[in-house]
Amino acid sequence: MPELRKDPIIGRWVIISTERGRRPSSFQSVPQKNAAKMCPFCPGHENNTPPEIMAYRKQGTEPNQPGWTLRVIPNKFPALIVEGALNREPKGIYDKMYGIGAHEVIIETPEHAHDIVDMTDEQVRDILWAYRERMADLERDIRLKYILVFKNHGAASGASLEHAHSQLIATPIIPKRVAEELEGSKRYFDFKERCIYCDIVRQEITDQERIVKDFDSFITIQPFASRFPFETWLIPKAHQSSYLEMSDSQYLVLARCLKDTLLRLKLALNDPPFNYIIHTRPVSKKYHEYYHWHIEIIPKLTKVAGFEWGSGFYINPTKPEEAAEFLRNINVNDYKPHKPAKVVLGD
Amino acid sequence: MPELRKDPIIGRWVIISTERGRRPSSFQSVPQKNAAKMCPFCPGHENNTPPEIMAYRKQGTEPNQPGWTLRVIPNKFPALIVEGALNREPKGIYDKMYGIGAHEVIIETPEHAHDIVDMTDEQVRDILWAYRERMADLERDIRLKYILVFKNHGAASGASLEHAHSQLIATPIIPKRVAEELEGSKRYFDFKERCIYCDIVRQEITDQERIVKDFDSFITIQPFASRFPFETWLIPKAHQSSYLEMSDSQYLVLARCLKDTLLRLKLALNDPPFNYIIHTRPVSKKYHEYYHWHIEIIPKLTKVAGFEWGSGFYINPTKPEEAAEFLRNINVNDYKPHKPAKVVLGD
Repeated sequence: MPELRKDPIIGRWVIISTERGRRPSSFQSVPQKNAAKMCPFCPGHENNTPPEIMAYRKQGTEPNQPGWTLRVIPNKFPALIVEGALNREPKGIYDKMYGIGAHEVIIETPEHAHDIVDMTDEQVRDILWAYRERMADLERDIRLKYILVFKNHGAASGASLEHAHSQLIATPIIPKRVAEELEGSKRYFDFKERCIYCDIVRQEITDQERIVKDFDSFITIQPFASRFPFETWLIPKAHQSSYLEMSDSQYLVLARCLKDTLLRLKLALNDPPFNYIIHTRPVSKKYHEYYHWHIEIIPKLTKVAGFEWGSGFYINPTKPEEAAEFLRNINVNDYKPHKPAKVVLGD
Repeated sequence: MPELRKDPIIGRWVIISTERGRRPSSFQSVPQKNAAKMCPFCPGHENNTPPEIMAYRKQGTEPNQPGWTLRVIPNKFPALIVEGALNREPKGIYDKMYGIGAHEVIIETPEHAHDIVDMTDEQVRDILWAYRERMADLERDIRLKYILVFKNHGAASGASLEHAHSQLIATPIIPKRVAEELEGSKRYFDFKERCIYCDIVRQEITDQERIVKDFDSFITIQPFASRFPFETWLIPKAHQSSYLEMSDSQYLVLARCLKDTLLRLKLALNDPPFNYIIHTRPVSKKYHEYYHWHIEIIPKLTKVAGFEWGSGFYINPTKPEEAAEFLRNINVNDYKPHKPAKVVLGD
């Protein structure tokens, strides 16, 4: 059973993982590249993953068989597990509880070599719909307080498999970084009676210099106090606290916006490793007035060193205004999407 | 001039660096290994660094010439610079100021291939004394609120040069992570009227299972809510809020303790990249009652992925109790220190 432990000083919870446990002696050897291994996410290999939670698939095809266009499965090595009670308890001056939650994998496409930038807008929207469907389902579990959807792309970003996928982790506590955003935006709301993200959108539209692209209902920006070169935020213009508040058709606009951003980063930076993270409000609606959902995209171009770990204070060598200009000037029409080599449906 | 910018939501300051600026177009190419380059930190190459701020050197030798055993220089590409006023100002809804501060490099030894584990206890103590000397000097500058000393070892930890060195960055604000520790330990003090770190020391001595080694006046532990495999804390047993409060002779005990810890990590993990960071109170004495200085050592064994960035919530695959046992069982007498190939004093 994984364990959640609380840092007694700053109140940060940590997952001590057993399902993905590594013995202390296992760090000596250098991890191998997972080059020519059989891909468990490819069609025909459905038996190599836990049984699917949901899938978008051709009519008449069976669960856990080929015929799907998108597939959601439990993580084989989950950080948190679904069954059980929390059992909050002290341990001397410390606090711990069981690692209850959910850890799922969204396999975004049957094509091994396809990324979001290679997909049609509708395929990307399907990914975004799948996020919504899983989040809405897990919000019904009263033990869970937060649902985090994120994507690791490239080995340096933490991705262990190449085949395009995202992940979802649902947690029984509000994670520290999210709690900080909630506190900060509440503090601003208490003072100004306005949402800080709405004010950021207004400021960025006035300043223009940090905008990457202005869509109908979203903007993509390089944030003013950007931690990393090319850190990019994607913010809905209208006030919405949760990713689940969009109308059906807005997910297609968001799909275009996300694809455009990832393509600009890919062309500008030679397919960099990156993470994206959906920042949405916790399950509870009480945060609605002052929180505003958005997506943060972090290309992995620099190393986080001792100074950053010790201080939480980042050194960014690239001005966000210059990064924004560079991304605006990328010609996204230059890109030739990967063509599927052959549609492999369970060879 | 570097710029400090404040994230308007969570209040984190970021350094937008100009001295170490990277044009957006510079990220396309893969950075080269700095293998066979001439080392600017070796004796005889003093002219390749800015003039030294201080040095421990043989009597009769000249500044910026060979003959030193330890040398402190300004960073050639400083994140913050010493000259100027802060000029705090708004920029629309945002806040910024000039990047005033200090950024220094402590060259720990003239021997290119020596690390702390290869040095005598007295040599390590000299490094710790140099930290003290520079910190005490910078504390006199009223513009500065915090002084952070840290070390990056190995390329994956952010180190760009191989020759053993540490760094010091003095900042005009209290960095976010430090502020969180101050708030957390104050909250505990307000409730219990005891220092939380003193209570952690007591708890760890009672539990024993997370202790790596118990010295006279320090203990090294794997913290209860350890973020990373083999994250190690070195804590003075007596209440001291600042690194500067030790008696002269205590620095030698600390040197033994630090060397022992780094040697155990080196032998256990095959010379892993790591960072260590001295966590000490800000310049102001008002934090004395509830803050307790310590050193945090973080080996870089796992990748920080999207989930961690999005949530501030870490997944640690190794139980701290198991890591502590593994480190306790390392036989430090097995280690044969590097011998200096030849004492090169400015060939």
